[in-house]
Amino acid sequence: MKFYSYTDLSKDKVEAICLRQLEDDSSILERVKSIVTRVKNEGDKALFDYASQFDKVIMNKLYIDKEEIESIASTIPADAKSAIDTAYQNIRTFHASQANKEGRVETMEGVECWRETRAIEKVGLYVPGGSAVLPSTFLMLGIPALIAGCKEIVVCSPPQQDGKTNCYVAYCAVKLGIERIYLIGGAQAVAAMAYGTESVPKVYKIFGPGNRYVTQAKQLVQSAAGTAIDMPAGPSEVLVLADETANPSYVASDLLAQAEHGADSQAILVATSRKIIDKILERLEIQIKELPRREVTALAIANSYAVLVENLEQGMEFSNVYAPEHLILATEKFEQLIPLITNAGSVFLGNLTPESAGDYASGTNHTLPTSGFAKAYSGVSLDSFVKKITFQHISRKGLENIGSTVEILAAAEGLDAHKNAISIRLKG
Amino acid sequence: MKFYSYTDLSKDKVEAICLRQLEDDSSILERVKSIVTRVKNEGDKALFDYASQFDKVIMNKLYIDKEEIESIASTIPADAKSAIDTAYQNIRTFHASQANKEGRVETMEGVECWRETRAIEKVGLYVPGGSAVLPSTFLMLGIPALIAGCKEIVVCSPPQQDGKTNCYVAYCAVKLGIERIYLIGGAQAVAAMAYGTESVPKVYKIFGPGNRYVTQAKQLVQSAAGTAIDMPAGPSEVLVLADETANPSYVASDLLAQAEHGADSQAILVATSRKIIDKILERLEIQIKELPRREVTALAIANSYAVLVENLEQGMEFSNVYAPEHLILATEKFEQLIPLITNAGSVFLGNLTPESAGDYASGTNHTLPTSGFAKAYSGVSLDSFVKKITFQHISRKGLENIGSTVEILAAAEGLDAHKNAISIRLKG
Repeated sequence: MKFYSYTDLSKDKVEAICLRQLEDDSSILERVKSIVTRVKNEGDKALFDYASQFDKVIMNKLYIDKEEIESIASTIPADAKSAIDTAYQNIRTFHASQANKEGRVETMEGVECWRETRAIEKVGLYVPGGSAVLPSTFLMLGIPALIAGCKEIVVCSPPQQDGKTNCYVAYCAVKLGIERIYLIGGAQAVAAMAYGTESVPKVYKIFGPGNRYVTQAKQLVQSAAGTAIDMPAGPSEVLVLADETANPSYVASDLLAQAEHGADSQAILVATSRKIIDKILERLEIQIKELPRREVTALAIANSYAVLVENLEQGMEFSNVYAPEHLILATEKFEQLIPLITNAGSVFLGNLTPESAGDYASGTNHTLPTSGFAKAYSGVSLDSFVKKITFQHISRKGLENIGSTVEILAAAEGLDAHKNAISIRLKG
Repeated sequence: MKFYSYTDLSKDKVEAICLRQLEDDSSILERVKSIVTRVKNEGDKALFDYASQFDKVIMNKLYIDKEEIESIASTIPADAKSAIDTAYQNIRTFHASQANKEGRVETMEGVECWRETRAIEKVGLYVPGGSAVLPSTFLMLGIPALIAGCKEIVVCSPPQQDGKTNCYVAYCAVKLGIERIYLIGGAQAVAAMAYGTESVPKVYKIFGPGNRYVTQAKQLVQSAAGTAIDMPAGPSEVLVLADETANPSYVASDLLAQAEHGADSQAILVATSRKIIDKILERLEIQIKELPRREVTALAIANSYAVLVENLEQGMEFSNVYAPEHLILATEKFEQLIPLITNAGSVFLGNLTPESAGDYASGTNHTLPTSGFAKAYSGVSLDSFVKKITFQHISRKGLENIGSTVEILAAAEGLDAHKNAISIRLKG
């Protein structure tokens, strides 16, 4: 782990260390382009070919249906079933609370304006499942889609070695009432949902994290096919802000949890004294030895850094420039820091709130803006699955009240037909 | 205007006529790429050159400040000032009503989750002003940015022939408390805000309509620079659904108001009888003769079409496939149609509610999804200028309640360090 002292850093240097290392992925882009183009042109045939090429599975059909899903789901261990049930309930409770009905507003007498919410009718969920199987992502995307009322929920997840999906993903599907899972992974899954194939329906918006191919494919179809996407995505990251009230072992465990995602994950430690940093790194060295994924975890830790700050406020200043996907406030003084947070995806308060709680089960969504995108993007929520449509109704009285204003502004912009749409109505 | 009878159309044909005619703009893309690259590399120098090349103005500096803005604003005619004041008030009232504070949710005892809203700190507003000067767009973007509390609001608008801006735009700036206007137009303005130059600050999100160059530049910087944008954009459009209770003259005036935007605008008429269509087209022929922009308006009308439907419900079915930016329900029976609307940007109810009211002054935003994007996107609102950050706090009791669930799910996904972040805390 590198080390910086914040007060020694110039503004430019701060910006530089906050820049995520985005590899030059022009070679990936070319490969993704060719995959997307082939799926667009050849449909299912391309998908069968890619399953054999990338997933090393010969598929007979591209999906499994209700009966087969239920049969696979029934093999889930009892404790995992119960854990998914609990996570499901919490995620559902929190996302349901995000629905809000807005009232009508009379901006002038007789001029009434309001918004109504409508579900996006066709959405595509990508549930990763290559190197790690991620049923939690299925819940994080499926539950808000269900609450929103999306009519058609298309789910793609890479086939496992047996050409099926695993019991966790299958059980999530049962919980969500999803009756078909497309066993398609990577850029080809994104292309299939963006353009539609003989088997896979075309959707209006695609959600879900994935590797570089998936991410690149999402950005490609966003501009080429006009498909909306949840957000751009990069490797996962955490920033932990710690002071002397932090528990060094807990902080070490949080940094390691982030680092085990992959060598390109970032685990940033910001602390108010060198002593705290040293203690945490000491615990980290001990804990990492016990981890099955210690090699990749060590790579990520080596790519990460610690920043010494003079106080918590300065730490927040740095954090807001970094704009972390996950922000852990490992301090008893978290309440006073909340108003200072401007850029972050999801925030974990105090010593007993690890990121992994939010990754799986507390109720918040784990699909969050990485790579500094938290400066402009929110994480996935119920909002991500709906549109808000504005409505207005104007009465005769309202028309009289607003008419001349519209006429004058339309004339100022040289749009006479706009003006006339008012004038002709004012004449009665 | 072409004519179709809905019941004679196959599903494929319906999809085909709903497809917006997107010209092949690969030549535009190449030119935009070169403009964006030059601004990125050369900064202000490129902006001065483009002002002289595209706007035909030799600029000494790229912006005007408070004093000059106030001086220009003071020349505004009294009636226009008062019209802007009224529009400002209505837009402010409606957008302020979109703020909502969410409560904290206890998903399990001791596990508390909530969201807080934060303004996007740096936003860029593009106020078009080439062929038509659009102060209304300035209000539509500036007011929600102000309510949201965006710290830095960068405004770009093309210079007028005198190298300044006009009195309407200047007066809007005064109303909004914006103390600098960058006199930069087109793709170069978008590039300047995405990358920053010596004069122009870099922003996190860019808003605003514009011509093809502006639109293409927004999409380019979205993928290349990671700058968020409000939405993709295409030519403006309206769909009017009319029955025998519609006023043919009013409907004609609404179609013409849309058509005068440009030859590529679409004005779609859907009506429940041939007689209604004929009456409306009759009035349209009369009204168009009086319009100063009648030539371009006639081109747009020629590119548009009418659809005969059997009843209003069938009309809504078609409208939802078309997903219009603006939907006018020219019928007294609008209330019963509201629940049937799934895809639209903004809806105008009844015979006395012309689109132009919403374009300028009723309070709703006029920056809306075109080209069918209403299937997945909302128009600009207060939401567009904020992010929602999730927070969570877990107590000892909460940790005991949620702990095993997280441990089991983390283990199922093979993420032992995630599991350990819980286990180590459970040990106390």
